[in-house]
Amino acid sequence: MLSGNNIKELFLGIDGGGSKCKAIVMNKDNEILGTGIAGPGNPLHGFEQATNSIALSAKLALEDANLAYVDLSELTAGVGLAGVNLPVLFKQMQAWQHPFKQIFLATDLLIACLGAHQGEDGAVMISGTGSCGFSYIDGQQFMIGAHGFPHGDKGSGAWFGLQAAKQVLLSIDGIVESSIMNDVLLTKLGCKDDTALVEVIAGKTATYYAQLANLVFDAAEKGDKVALEIVKEGAEYINSIARTLGKRNPPRISMIGGLTPRLKPWLAKDIQAQLSEPLSAPEVGSVLFARSELAKQELVKS
Amino acid sequence: MLSGNNIKELFLGIDGGGSKCKAIVMNKDNEILGTGIAGPGNPLHGFEQATNSIALSAKLALEDANLAYVDLSELTAGVGLAGVNLPVLFKQMQAWQHPFKQIFLATDLLIACLGAHQGEDGAVMISGTGSCGFSYIDGQQFMIGAHGFPHGDKGSGAWFGLQAAKQVLLSIDGIVESSIMNDVLLTKLGCKDDTALVEVIAGKTATYYAQLANLVFDAAEKGDKVALEIVKEGAEYINSIARTLGKRNPPRISMIGGLTPRLKPWLAKDIQAQLSEPLSAPEVGSVLFARSELAKQELVKS
Repeated sequence: MLSGNNIKELFLGIDGGGSKCKAIVMNKDNEILGTGIAGPGNPLHGFEQATNSIALSAKLALEDANLAYVDLSELTAGVGLAGVNLPVLFKQMQAWQHPFKQIFLATDLLIACLGAHQGEDGAVMISGTGSCGFSYIDGQQFMIGAHGFPHGDKGSGAWFGLQAAKQVLLSIDGIVESSIMNDVLLTKLGCKDDTALVEVIAGKTATYYAQLANLVFDAAEKGDKVALEIVKEGAEYINSIARTLGKRNPPRISMIGGLTPRLKPWLAKDIQAQLSEPLSAPEVGSVLFARSELAKQELVKS
Repeated sequence: MLSGNNIKELFLGIDGGGSKCKAIVMNKDNEILGTGIAGPGNPLHGFEQATNSIALSAKLALEDANLAYVDLSELTAGVGLAGVNLPVLFKQMQAWQHPFKQIFLATDLLIACLGAHQGEDGAVMISGTGSCGFSYIDGQQFMIGAHGFPHGDKGSGAWFGLQAAKQVLLSIDGIVESSIMNDVLLTKLGCKDDTALVEVIAGKTATYYAQLANLVFDAAEKGDKVALEIVKEGAEYINSIARTLGKRNPPRISMIGGLTPRLKPWLAKDIQAQLSEPLSAPEVGSVLFARSELAKQELVKS
């Protein structure tokens, strides 16, 4: 059990995204004591929901650490959130009457990068539902991509899914050659024909399309020409992001996000060779960020 | 003034789309007596609104023809509507307790094709907000494309606008070469930089993107490489539609839709050479459809 003294040195790390909010509780030796997950933590989809998710995931992480008796006001929190790159949302979150001892707010990209490189300088390419590149070197943040769907986020899960749907529709019309993706996609979505497919996919979001990304990689790995073209085009965009980040000479570069296992083998060999495994998760990056900011505060005070 | 007898031989033609509903009143000699325009006439966006728009545009057309004293119940109506290719909407519109003498319901594509070829067999390529091909030969209808945005409708206004936004965002990130479209697009949308652009275009509809199509053609005509690639790719898709329609040997083929004046000069020379000017508007096609269906009814009765 932690003594009263140690409890005062507990840190909370939050990674709040569009679909879920992850929390981690760590001690001053950066040991993970417990984790928790709650609903959406992106303030873009609502301040109330985001702040509720952050508090709930924190309580769950404390329970998981057998520290349910610890009050949230004992925790120093690093909070990484999608959306707070927008000034209006950053201000709104800063004004939150939060239940923690102290709070340090960062973007989801910064905490992901800090997590991947254990708080040291570095860069990350991210391909999940969306896509982007980010580096944090000598205190300077740099971002590329992250433009959103359907106008951006090339090489992301949503982009791969949309390309699949486009090519299947074109091939049903005889405009491009047919693909083994045709039957797979129609079966997966329970559609008899292109009319049914068009009805099913009309108005769908990035999250929906991202669920279709795997079938493109499955087909490409079987040598399907149409799928291979899509995978090569998506990989080439992530190569471009890596080369742009590389110009800033990051000490380490990692690839993260849900599509990484499928997409990484398709990147250029020289880029694959440069990649380092991410050292820890974004929510750990949030703790490292909080500790770093706390150290700066104490330096100013002393 | 029309005599009582002539009034009984008045025809109404309706072209009901997603943004407006056009009406035309014609006599038995196919002379245009008056026209009217009301709000959205596509039942996909609401039955009440569509039927109100149809009735209102019809009254406006009668007023325009100085026939305000004529009751709608005197009119034989041909009604072409976007959306009624979906069985559920066709049934809903068929069940309408309409105010006309008689109503004949058709898709917007059929009446556009009948209008373009004065009721005779033929084919049309359409590029407006969306894109598709359609033919009507020996009583057989055939459709290609018309898949919707953003997964389909290649070569349409919405597709050109989206491609412009994509390329501008990629070039701001240094992934593709810069284009004269960059400044034009940012200025047109009142944006200072890519962050502002992403905020402005997030979640926008096909209609919004279609308003950006002209700037792609403007840039291409000035020799801009990025714009030229987009225009060539869009034109190639419409070429493919034309070649697919051509296999059915339509006696005439026309290109219609709002983007026609900009896109037609970029089509393959052999396809441009095959194109005939559309002879009349879709709402005239609706009247021709109604008269043709009426003639079939009278044949059955006699």
